Order: sequence, then C-alpha cells, then structure tokens
Amino acid sequence: MKSNDERKTILDYDTVTLDEAQNAVIIIDQTLLPGRTELIALRTAQEIWDAIYLLKVRGAPAIGVTAALGIYVLSREIDTDDFRIFYGKFREYKEFLDSARPTAVNLSWALKRMERAALQAGREEKRPVAEVKEILRREAIRIREEDIEVCRKIGEYGLTLVKPGDGILTHCNAGQLATVKYGTATAPIYLGQEKGYGFKVFADETRPLLQGARLTAFELQSAGVDVTLICDNMSASVMAKGLVQAVFVGCDRVAANGDAANKIGTSVVAAVAKHYGVPVYICAPTSTIDMATPTGREIHIEERPAHEVTEMWYKERMAPEGVKVYNPAFDVTDHELISGIVTEYGVARAPYTESLRLIMNQKGKIRNEAECEPV
Amino acid sequence: MKSNDERKTILDYDTVTLDEAQNAVIIIDQTLLPGRTELIALRTAQEIWDAIYLLKVRGAPAIGVTAALGIYVLSREIDTDDFRIFYGKFREYKEFLDSARPTAVNLSWALKRMERAALQAGREEKRPVAEVKEILRREAIRIREEDIEVCRKIGEYGLTLVKPGDGILTHCNAGQLATVKYGTATAPIYLGQEKGYGFKVFADETRPLLQGARLTAFELQSAGVDVTLICDNMSASVMAKGLVQAVFVGCDRVAANGDAANKIGTSVVAAVAKHYGVPVYICAPTSTIDMATPTGREIHIEERPAHEVTEMWYKERMAPEGVKVYNPAFDVTDHELISGIVTEYGVARAPYTESLRLIMNQKGKIRNEAECEPV
Repeated sequence: MKSNDERKTILDYDTVTLDEAQNAVIIIDQTLLPGRTELIALRTAQEIWDAIYLLKVRGAPAIGVTAALGIYVLSREIDTDDFRIFYGKFREYKEFLDSARPTAVNLSWALKRMERAALQAGREEKRPVAEVKEILRREAIRIREEDIEVCRKIGEYGLTLVKPGDGILTHCNAGQLATVKYGTATAPIYLGQEKGYGFKVFADETRPLLQGARLTAFELQSAGVDVTLICDNMSASVMAKGLVQAVFVGCDRVAANGDAANKIGTSVVAAVAKHYGVPVYICAPTSTIDMATPTGREIHIEERPAHEVTEMWYKERMAPEGVKVYNPAFDVTDHELISGIVTEYGVARAPYTESLRLIMNQKGKIRNEAECEPV
Repeated sequence: MKSNDERKTILDYDTVTLDEAQNAVIIIDQTLLPGRTELIALRTAQEIWDAIYLLKVRGAPAIGVTAALGIYVLSREIDTDDFRIFYGKFREYKEFLDSARPTAVNLSWALKRMERAALQAGREEKRPVAEVKEILRREAIRIREEDIEVCRKIGEYGLTLVKPGDGILTHCNAGQLATVKYGTATAPIYLGQEKGYGFKVFADETRPLLQGARLTAFELQSAGVDVTLICDNMSASVMAKGLVQAVFVGCDRVAANGDAANKIGTSVVAAVAKHYGVPVYICAPTSTIDMATPTGREIHIEERPAHEVTEMWYKERMAPEGVKVYNPAFDVTDHELISGIVTEYGVARAPYTESLRLIMNQKGKIRNEAECEPV
C-alpha cells in the first residue's frame, strides 16, 4: 500500500490500526522511514510475525496492540463452530506470535489478555464461536484505545517533572511510532509542545538500528519540536555543557525492584546522566511492569544478528569479514540509576519494590480488571 | 598506488613512512579500510592538509609524524639559498598544515619542533639552506622513530596494569593505525599477545566515523587478537556481565589537571566504567600532555559536519532532511573518571597536577631536550 499524499506528516497516521473490511492489521512499515512512509497490511500469521521480528512495527506498546489486533484478525479466519477446535488453532497462533520477540512483555501480555477473553467467553460462558470472535474484536480494540489513553496520562505526569525551556534527552524511539499515539517517552514532549514549553530535545541515533535518527528525530521534527540528532556516544558532551535537564526513555520490561530493560544503550545514558547529575525517567505503561520478575537479572535479553552492526545500512561492509560481534538488543538499567518511573497512575520513586506495588494495587482497585495485569 | 599483495596483513605496513626517492609521505588511506588497503603518496601541501583533514591519516601520533615528514618534503621543494626566504615559505606551509585539525596537540607540536630545528640551524647557526634541509630530514625521521619507541614503552607500562585472560575495552582507534607501530591503547594488547596473555578485547565501533569497526577490529583481528566488535552503546552490557577488567583508550590532548580530550564517546565509556567499577587508563605519549592547558575546559573541541552522522556511510539518508545535528569530534573525560595516565615514562596517578608535572620533569631531565616538549 503506497503512502497517502493527503497526510502531511507522520503524526497524521496511526501507527497500528485495524482494517475490518479487508480483515487486516495496518501498520506503517518503520524499516522504510524516514525515506518513505508506506502502510502495509498484515493478514497472515507469518506476515504478523515477520512484521514484529523484522521491526516493521516496534516499541513494546505498539507490538502489544499489533499482536492483539493480529490474533483477532487470525481468529476470524478459523472456520469452525466448535470452541475446542477454535481454541486449539487460536493457541497455535498465539504461541507462534509470542515467539517473535522475547524481551517486550507487552507481546505476551496482550496475547494472554486476548486468550483469557476467548476462554472466558467460549469455555466458561459457553458462547458460540461467532460471539467469541466478536468479544475478541472488542478486546483488541479496547487494548488499542487504552494504549492511547495510557500514553496521554504518562505525558501529563511526565510534564510535571520538567519546566518550559528544558533540554530533554531521549534514546531510541519510545515515540508515537512505538505506540498508537503520543508515545511514552515523547508524550511529555508532545504535551509540552501543545502548551508552548519550547523544549530542546536531543535524540540519540541509537545504533545499530538507528531508531533515534530514523524515527524519533523524524517524528519530533514533523511535529515542529526543536530536536537535535546526536550519536549515542555524545550524550556526555551535551550533559557536560548543561544542555540536558532530564532524560526520558521508554522501556520494554520493568522488574519488581525497578530495574528496567530498554533498548540497548539506555543504561549507558543512565550512567552518564548520573555522573552529570541529570535525572533519568523511565516512561512505563503498567503493562510493561512485570511484578513476577524480581530483578533485571531475570530478564532475558534478545541477541540479534551481527550483520545489523557490520553492514545492514551501509554501502559496503564496515568491519572486517569474520569479526566477532556482540549485538544485544536491550540492556538493563539498574534501579539506582533511575530517578522515577512514570506510569499512567503516577510517578513511582525509590524504593521501587514498594512504589511499584502500590501503583499496581491502585491499578487493580481502579479498574477492577485483574485480567489486565501481566502475571 | 595500489595495495601490495605480498603484504599479508595491515600490520605488515607502516602507517606513515617517508619515500625519499619520490619526495613524498606515504600513508595507508584509512578512509578505505577495511575494504581496501591502499597506499597513497602525499607530495603537495594541499595533499597533506587534505589527508589530515579528511582523516586519511588520523590518530594524534600519526598526524604528528605525517606533519613532520610532510613539512620536510615541502621544504625540499623550496628553491632558494636565502634562509629568510626559505623560512618565510616554511612558515606559510607550517601554518597551513597546522590549520587542518584543531584538537590534536601533536600536529602543532611536531610542526613547532620542526620549525625550531630549522630556526636553530638556519638563523642561530647560520647554516646554508641545504644543510637546514638535511637537519629537517633527520628531525622528521627522529620524530617518527621516537613514536615507535614511545608506543613500545607505553605498552610495557600498560601491561603491568592487567593480567592474562583479562577483558579489555577500547574506543576509537588508538592502534597501530593511529601511530607508526604498536599504537598507544593497543600497545599493551599487542605486547600481551606476544606473551600469550589471551586478552579478550571489546572494540567500540565509534560513531560517526566507525574507526573502531573499520580500523581497531580490523588491525586486532589481523594480529590474531580475540576481538569482539560492539556498538558504542553496548559498553554497559559487557561491563555489567563482568567481561571487562580494564579500559584502555588513547588521547589527543591531556590538560595539566589530567582532564583528557579524546575521540567523542570516551567520556561516555569512562562514566559507564566508573558505575561498574572498571578502571579507565588513558594511554598518552608525553607529546599529548599539554601543561599549558590548565583543565579540559580550555581545550577547543572540533565540530564536524552533519552529513557524517546522517548519511556518510549509508545507502540512503538515515535521518530526516534538515534535522539539526551536533557532531563534536572529541569530548573531555574528567580526570576524576581516570584511573591512570600511561606515558612512556610511567603511569601517572591522581592527583594528576603533581604526577604529570613529575613525569614532564623526568622527561626533561632524561632527554635534556627542552625543545621536544609542547609549550
């Protein structure tokens, strides 16, 4: 599907939507940005898996929404009236999609939530398969709408941590393109922009996949934000000059003690920020908070192929043939380097073991939807 | 000049040599590595300036040697018997070459040392211009030979700071390719390799110019060293895993208080290393120690063009058109993040104001060559 020229900037697109007429998940193919804005339709399990694995859609929240809409799209094609047969096939799809990326908790969280909706309707309430499918549709759409609302609230809480004119550094893309709208780390920036706060944003380019250069710099510039692109190894230079008052980053999984897994390099930024006295805020929807993981040591870190480092974007190979490469996709930032974890229920502060439990309890009370918590 | 196939690895080449027959400085064009090993001959002032500015030759020591050999080559072409005319033209060349890069002290140090040799011979000793040229030849060759000896000594002192089997992280290329032989940060690695120390080396790729991927990984692999390439933002990951026992980096200028300017990202590595309790050693020939610069704040940091970050090596532009870019070529590592400064006269420890003065005094005493010190 080609780009629609009537839409002026990337912010006029939704990152992930459902197209019910053609029974497909529609995403922006982020591997083509910033050169080309192209929408693609995902219809088969392989297409959805590939889109997640190949980072055509990336960012924990957007992956979760894609998986939820995706498994709904796949469930519509399961041609049976027998719930047991339906559920057997649904499970197969679920496990296959769940294998696309191991670190982001949202992927398995969204799939589990969809599975529970199916089980409750089909097994407990004995509804016909057609109704189960309708319930899955509503659940997937609710997950998507909740994502928008969660990001807006993270933006509001994040905005209380900075003041007009501040310099903000961000790493990777926890932007609109990582969610459905607003982003997480960028939500305070976008809300501040609406209020004329005049933030000066520094975007780390984020090797090896350059999400900062290709996506964050792109979407912020598109929104009229004052953004400056730097290489990942320049964070100390801008902090030493006093140009950064806060670091906002996203996260893929927060452990119960506040250790946060996020895009490779986040813990580098955090250690540098500590040296220069700059506070680091992790923007974390509660769907990324995993109370069942005690510390960051238990978080499995995905390793990706060497060619991403040595040749992927380059005109020619940029390292000697046969050289060993270590390419972890994420790292874990020690909770002691984190000044606050910004959720849709407020800002958690150290000690995180307590503050995160309080926030998760508050979420449970307010929503009384235990099935929404990642367990 | 095409690559000479009889030479097997990059270590069979000298980084910078003098070819007296064709009156040229011969360098490996490092912008073509690791894809192609090509020697180029520099004959004119513009060729020498371009080679330094465009990083065909880079690394503070190699730049100094290139400038020394280069101004000798240029001085041979000054066709006069009148020393005042000779010196006028020599000065012009010197100031032009000196303008190629502002941060590395070795460039102006080597040129000043050549100028003093010319002035002493021509103005004080009233020698004929032909003899002045011969004295310049000997001085340039001496600067080159001293560089080899200095690197070997740095290697010996550096080797006392680590033990067999250690993991060593290095940033950018302070390797053989940054000097004439051995390198500075790599000298302990090469000497350890000869002794079968079995170091495990991690080479930061070093954005935006990728000297770590293109040069360090290349020369270490070529020498049979166990080297793993990582992106600059992965240093925390390998340190958190306990894989790094020491950081060795080069430097372009050390201030009197121990603050050290080196390739952009060095201070990032140093802040990360501090968090993980890994010692950071700056490998610094005394020619890079600038006692006339009190602290790092007085070191001028070269800023380079945006296209190096956004498109230089890439198949296509990797950031949105018109995005602002900040691209400092160096940063200053606070002396408090540095565990030791390894020179050819020993390892300086904090407080550096004292230890560096002692080392410079020792150098003065041993060599009794006050004109060799950068002032």
